[in-house]
Amino acid sequence: MTRFEIHTTSREAMVDVTEKVRQALQASGALEGWVLVYCPHTTAGVTINENADPAVPDDVLRGLGDLVPRHGAWSHAEGNSDAHIKASLIGSSVTIPVADGDLMLGTWQGVFLCEFDGPRRRYVSVSVLPV
Amino acid sequence: MTRFEIHTTSREAMVDVTEKVRQALQASGALEGWVLVYCPHTTAGVTINENADPAVPDDVLRGLGDLVPRHGAWSHAEGNSDAHIKASLIGSSVTIPVADGDLMLGTWQGVFLCEFDGPRRRYVSVSVLPV
Amino acid sequence: MTRFEIHTTSREAMVDVTEKVRQALQASGALEGWVLVYCPHTTAGVTINENADPAVPDDVLRGLGDLVPRHGAWSHAEGNSDAHIKASLIGSSVTIPVADGDLMLGTWQGVFLCEFDGPRRRYVSVSVLPV
Repeated sequence: MTRFEIHTTSREAMVDVTEKVRQALQASGALEGWVLVYCPHTTAGVTINENADPAVPDDVLRGLGDLVPRHGAWSHAEGNSDAHIKASLIGSSVTIPVADGDLMLGTWQGVFLCEFDGPRRRYVSVSVLPV
Repeated sequence: MTRFEIHTTSREAMVDVTEKVRQALQASGALEGWVLVYCPHTTAGVTINENADPAVPDDVLRGLGDLVPRHGAWSHAEGNSDAHIKASLIGSSVTIPVADGDLMLGTWQGVFLCEFDGPRRRYVSVSVLPV
Repeated sequence: MTRFEIHTTSREAMVDVTEKVRQALQASGALEGWVLVYCPHTTAGVTINENADPAVPDDVLRGLGDLVPRHGAWSHAEGNSDAHIKASLIGSSVTIPVADGDLMLGTWQGVFLCEFDGPRRRYVSVSVLPV
């Protein structure tokens, strides 16, 4: 298992981490198996979506913002309940199949760290299960 | 890793792929382990839900449609931002435990490809990690 | 694969199952690998979120309740379509990396069974894939 660090610079962001995940896979030497990309934070998540047009991740953040208001009748005193809820909607990890030593992502797919309560220092772990 | 093809016939659909996943598992010969059902598209996803009453997947699509409007103030010019957002809400894969050579789904559970921007030709990959 | 049972006592609940998952991992003897926590029900799910302040899981349930009304124009006759939709939004499983024989959860992360249509008897399965 390896991990890398991301410093987010705004409250919300979708950070394309596809190349970092690919590098971790290739460093493992595995040719076939699965990769788990795991976010150990409760106000951030990991998702797969289009990384060709940057308008897509922007719209994902906007869509989630329309769903979950930042200032609602929340119980949690830290004022970031929206970020916790988005983290559970998006999920804390993605699993990707591996073949021929590469991520079997679709043509338009990339892996994103989703920041919902930044700016913060975030970690992402990558672990490989070879077949 | 194997994959199969689904031709969807409407903009949105929940296609029950449980039997195709089971066949891929059985073809692998694995008796214990995990199955990963992975969708390589950014406007479709994979979920597990009830496949007994077809009203349930209909309501899942309706519920998602109520959450994310098709025609909103989106940046992405292709007009399918709602589909991208739904794909991240639902997720691109499911992982299912295997025992005695079968999927350890609950009594009412089935696996669905969720089409959010059809009609299209879609692929679903199935890979098995034996213990 | 092992499983444990949870008796929920209200229609909706977030039940912290982190220690039960940890015990199942330790009983397996695995030191490195992945744990899959799987929910075989279609009106419940599994998520990872903060388990330090109980206001956080309360807010997650409240946020989901604001998103998906219980009494909408649903097709499914059992009156629990909201629970099915929430199950697909949250997901039926989480996968967690393992190192040194322990769950590699972040400092604030715990694993929750999410009950959306209780009170019911629920099962959660835990399976370990060692590297």
